[in-house]
Amino acid sequence: MLTFVGLGLYDERSITVKGRDALHRADRAFAEFYTSRLVGTSVAELEAHHGVDIEVRDRAGVERDPAPILDAAADGDVVFLTAGDSMISTTHVDLRLRAIDRGIDTRVIHGVSAASAASGLTGLQNYRFGKAVTLPFPRAHGGDDVPASVADSVETNRERGLHTLVYLDIKVDDGRGANAGETYMTADRAAELLATEWPDTLAVAVARAGSPDPVVAADRLSVLATRTFGDPLHLLVVPGEVHHVEADALRTLAGAPADTLPEN
Amino acid sequence: MLTFVGLGLYDERSITVKGRDALHRADRAFAEFYTSRLVGTSVAELEAHHGVDIEVRDRAGVERDPAPILDAAADGDVVFLTAGDSMISTTHVDLRLRAIDRGIDTRVIHGVSAASAASGLTGLQNYRFGKAVTLPFPRAHGGDDVPASVADSVETNRERGLHTLVYLDIKVDDGRGANAGETYMTADRAAELLATEWPDTLAVAVARAGSPDPVVAADRLSVLATRTFGDPLHLLVVPGEVHHVEADALRTLAGAPADTLPEN
Repeated sequence: MLTFVGLGLYDERSITVKGRDALHRADRAFAEFYTSRLVGTSVAELEAHHGVDIEVRDRAGVERDPAPILDAAADGDVVFLTAGDSMISTTHVDLRLRAIDRGIDTRVIHGVSAASAASGLTGLQNYRFGKAVTLPFPRAHGGDDVPASVADSVETNRERGLHTLVYLDIKVDDGRGANAGETYMTADRAAELLATEWPDTLAVAVARAGSPDPVVAADRLSVLATRTFGDPLHLLVVPGEVHHVEADALRTLAGAPADTLPEN
Repeated sequence: MLTFVGLGLYDERSITVKGRDALHRADRAFAEFYTSRLVGTSVAELEAHHGVDIEVRDRAGVERDPAPILDAAADGDVVFLTAGDSMISTTHVDLRLRAIDRGIDTRVIHGVSAASAASGLTGLQNYRFGKAVTLPFPRAHGGDDVPASVADSVETNRERGLHTLVYLDIKVDDGRGANAGETYMTADRAAELLATEWPDTLAVAVARAGSPDPVVAADRLSVLATRTFGDPLHLLVVPGEVHHVEADALRTLAGAPADTLPEN
């Protein structure tokens, strides 16, 4: 049995009770942290809190060499842990399909995702979000600004009055270079990139969703670009049309300046 | 302190560990089940499992008469429970803003939402979903077919190659009429409604997301309309452009007939 378990957004207690129970019962636990991270805990803390050993795999160890995970799941009860919800990434769908091909039972125990949190923390209505995008580091796509696909999606959503959730790039290198480790794009850096196109557009920075001290800040992109929001992970939301209760929420929860919001 | 806690998707163990801890510590626990339900448990089972008393409020008891909840939160540690994620509905944003107005500290402990589960269970990529819609019972909007706003959203998403998550109506009456209780729109009924416009369009029915026995079934809307998917809650997804891994997932996880999918 291969059970995909989402760890949720922040620390060792962001997992669901059902997910924790599956983790405690498992013969072996694998995890990957290259698609996202739990910034409020470490693997050692997760292991200590749950009383389990966790075998962390890098991208190659999941995508190119999934056999050890599948072999373990063919012989026993295996959980595969990821931050957030488990099946967001194509990688893990592929792993699930490979398991099914080998006749291994699979199931999914969902985790809290950043998309829900972005809606909940900002007060923007979930059914008024359009297509989400990921803003990459400029060096990742070889340019120095916002990829046309990202700009187009934001623009098309706005034309329909819809909000855009902008996921921010996480760069995990292989640990062998001079800059080993992770780099997280911050909301201020993302705002700076987007402000080149839309300096006066209202946006909302969300930092540390799911933590005890999330920051939610709404202002013009050019203003957000000059602020700092502390530790990762960060997200950015570009609202489309803002309805009455949403405007109240952005004012009260995110400190949006009055002149960025529609009048009541 | 007023803490909004999402109960997640299915039963008493769908809550996060953090949410459960907050519930156990609270002086009083309120809940509403008119925006959604946990179909895998009852209030009595929730109370027994968590060792707490839960005061369930109907819509009027939250929206028109929030004072008892706010009074309790001004004096002590109160949790407000909802199925799924807590802040999806405008109602609860409004309750949070009222609390802040009264100087009450608020926080949100997110729960697993149907949107994540729909993506995870179908293998359709989360960033390829467009605006979500809710399909109401025809009697709720006085017509006998699909509201134009729903049809337009599905159509516009499809033109952009995007998937549409279709939430299905839940009708909760006040318990005083002859038809007291809830009625859930089923995925086959939703497919029947949508098939009047798009009989040959591929769609995916998702039943009991978050439960131990979710059903995920992909076929033409006119075919899904003739099937049954068991107990609620149900969802429907109308895929837009289906990429390679997504097609594999719909074939393997949802039994999509080969002639409904792009060729590899």
